[in-house]
Amino acid sequence: MRATLMYEAGDVRVEDVSEPSIVEPTDAVIRVTRAAICGSDLWPYGSLEPTETGRPMGHEAIGVVEDIGEEVRNIEPGQLVVMPFAFSDGTCAFCHEGLHTECVHGGFFDGYGTSAAQAEAVRIPLADGTLFPLPVGEDDELMPSLLSLSDVLGTGHHAAVVSEVGPGKSVAVVGDGAVGLCGVIAANRLGAEQIIMLGRHEDRLALAREFGATDVVTERGDEAVERVKELSGGFGAPSVLECVGHDQSTASAIGMARPGGAVGRVGVPQDEAMPGGETAFYANVKVGGGPAPARAYIEELLPDILNGKIEPGKVFDRSVDLEGVPDGYRAMADRESIKVMITP
Amino acid sequence: MRATLMYEAGDVRVEDVSEPSIVEPTDAVIRVTRAAICGSDLWPYGSLEPTETGRPMGHEAIGVVEDIGEEVRNIEPGQLVVMPFAFSDGTCAFCHEGLHTECVHGGFFDGYGTSAAQAEAVRIPLADGTLFPLPVGEDDELMPSLLSLSDVLGTGHHAAVVSEVGPGKSVAVVGDGAVGLCGVIAANRLGAEQIIMLGRHEDRLALAREFGATDVVTERGDEAVERVKELSGGFGAPSVLECVGHDQSTASAIGMARPGGAVGRVGVPQDEAMPGGETAFYANVKVGGGPAPARAYIEELLPDILNGKIEPGKVFDRSVDLEGVPDGYRAMADRESIKVMITP
Repeated sequence: MRATLMYEAGDVRVEDVSEPSIVEPTDAVIRVTRAAICGSDLWPYGSLEPTETGRPMGHEAIGVVEDIGEEVRNIEPGQLVVMPFAFSDGTCAFCHEGLHTECVHGGFFDGYGTSAAQAEAVRIPLADGTLFPLPVGEDDELMPSLLSLSDVLGTGHHAAVVSEVGPGKSVAVVGDGAVGLCGVIAANRLGAEQIIMLGRHEDRLALAREFGATDVVTERGDEAVERVKELSGGFGAPSVLECVGHDQSTASAIGMARPGGAVGRVGVPQDEAMPGGETAFYANVKVGGGPAPARAYIEELLPDILNGKIEPGKVFDRSVDLEGVPDGYRAMADRESIKVMITP
Repeated sequence: MRATLMYEAGDVRVEDVSEPSIVEPTDAVIRVTRAAICGSDLWPYGSLEPTETGRPMGHEAIGVVEDIGEEVRNIEPGQLVVMPFAFSDGTCAFCHEGLHTECVHGGFFDGYGTSAAQAEAVRIPLADGTLFPLPVGEDDELMPSLLSLSDVLGTGHHAAVVSEVGPGKSVAVVGDGAVGLCGVIAANRLGAEQIIMLGRHEDRLALAREFGATDVVTERGDEAVERVKELSGGFGAPSVLECVGHDQSTASAIGMARPGGAVGRVGVPQDEAMPGGETAFYANVKVGGGPAPARAYIEELLPDILNGKIEPGKVFDRSVDLEGVPDGYRAMADRESIKVMITP
C-alpha cells in the first residue's frame, strides 16, 4: 500500500510499504477513508534528523474496519470508525476517569515502529478502547467535521476544559491554527461571553470570528498581553487557551491570564522548563493541559457535529490525495493552508 | 522603637527606628505581641545584596491595635488582631473571590519602604480589609497556633486546596519546613487518606507524623519520585504540595504527581522558568498556587485552632525576644530550628 514517510526535516515521501495486519489479538486494521496533516506534524517537518528507514506519519483518520483480532468484541468489520490520535484500552483507571491519553497500556500513533494514518490503511492497537463507530456513511458531507474528532476539536476542547471556560467568562485563545480555531468553537460552545483570538492571518481570523470570536488581537508578546488585559476589563482573561507551544506564546498566555485564572496548554511544548512559571506563581494562575483525551470527548462533541451546531470541518481548507501529501506539508508549513485533509 | 533590619546576606540587626504612625486614613498601627521568622526570610538571608539603609523584615504578627486612621470602620484600638503577610482592601473583585493576595490595592509587608513585623510596632495599610480580630487574650496559650494564621498555616492550606486534596486521596508533601508541616495539617484536615512527607530531618518528620503524615520519604530527586510512586499505588500522588521553591523540589513535585493530578506550589520560586513543565504537560498535571490568601482562610481555620482540633503552633520550636532575632535567623538557616517565634 501507499504510506507517508518522513526522512528528514522537509523531506516527506509517499512510498510503497507492506500492508498492516493484525499483530495482537486486540488489534484492528482500518482502511483509511480520510486522514489529515496536523500542526504537530510540522515540528518534525522543521527539525527531524535524517533517518534511513523513514518515520511513518499521521495520527488522525476515519476509516472502515477491514480486520479485527480475535479478542476484539465491540468493533466489527465494515464499521466506519474515527481513530483518536492516541490509542487506549478503555478499561484502566485513567480511561475510566476520561483521561485516555494517560492510559496505562496506551500510546500515540505515528513515530518509529508504529502504524500511522497518512496511508491507505492503519493498524489500530486496543481497537475496542480506541475506535469510535460513526453513525454515517463514509462519504457523508460531515466528514471533515467528523475527522476533527480525531484530534483538533478534542484538543481545542481540552484546552477550554482545562482553562475552566464557562458561561459568561472572558477567554483568550493563543494561536490561530486549527487547534486554536477549534478552541474558539469549544469556548463558544461552553458559553464564553467574550472570546479574544490572537493571530495574524486574516483568513484564520475571519474563520475565528465565524466560530464565535468576539475580539481579535494581532499584536504579539508584551503588546498582546496588554491588549488582552485592556479588552478583558483590565486584569486579563480568566481562561486562556495556549494552542501553539512556543516559549513566547506560553509566556504570553500566562501573562494575559487574570490572577486566579487558568491556562490550558495543548500546544506541544518545545522545552522541559516552562516559561512564565514565576509570573504564574505571583498571579496564582493555574497552568494545566497536555495531550487531549480526544477519545473521551467524542461522545460529548459528536452530537453537536451531527446536528450542525458546530462546524469544525471548516478548518480544512485544502484536500489532497495521498500523492499530494508532501505538497500538503509544504502548504501548511508556508501558512498557505490552515489544515489539509487527505482522501487516500 | 526596636526593629529588625537586614543589611546584607547573613547580616541581621535589631536597631532603634522611628515609631510607625498613621499615614493613610485607612491605616492602623499595632503594637506587636508576637511575630515570627519565616522560611522565606531565609532567601534574602542567603542572598541579599548589601544595602545602606537596611531592609525592614517580618511579615507575620499578632498585635494590639494602638491607633487607627479616620476612615477605619471595623477595627478598634485595643483589639487583638492577626496580621496576614499581605495587606488587602477586602472590597475588590479579587478579595471577594477569596484571593486577597491579588488585591488590586494590596501588597506585601516587609521590603524597602514598608513597615515590617519583626519590630515593636507595625503600620498596617488597609486595616479594615487586612486585620482579623482574635477572640482571645494577648497571652492565650494558643498564641503560637494563632500566629500561624499569619502565613504558614494558610500557606500550607493553600497548597492543599490548589492541589485538590480531598477525602480519601493520596497526598505528597515536598518540604519539611513549617509550611510543609502545615501542609500536612491541612491535608489531614481536608480528609486525605495517605499523606507522604518528604524530608530529611528526624525532628521534623516526627512532627509530620504527629500532624497526620502516614508515610515518610527521605530520598531526594528521582529516587524520591520513584518512592512516592511505589507508596501511592504505582502512578504517583494525585495531590502534591510543593513547599520549598527550589528547582529540584519543583521538578520532583511534578514528577511524583499522578497523571491528571495537581501540584500546589507555595514555595517561592527562584527562577522565572518552571522546571518540569514538559513532564507536567505529558502527564496532564495541573500546576497552580502562589502567594496564599492567608486572610481568606482565617475564617475557616481559626475555629479548628480554638477547638483544639489542629495545633500548628507546634512548628514553633524556639522563642526569642527582639534582641534574639539575629540568632533566630542563624538557627533557622542552620536547620537548628524549624520556626522561631518572637515576643518583643
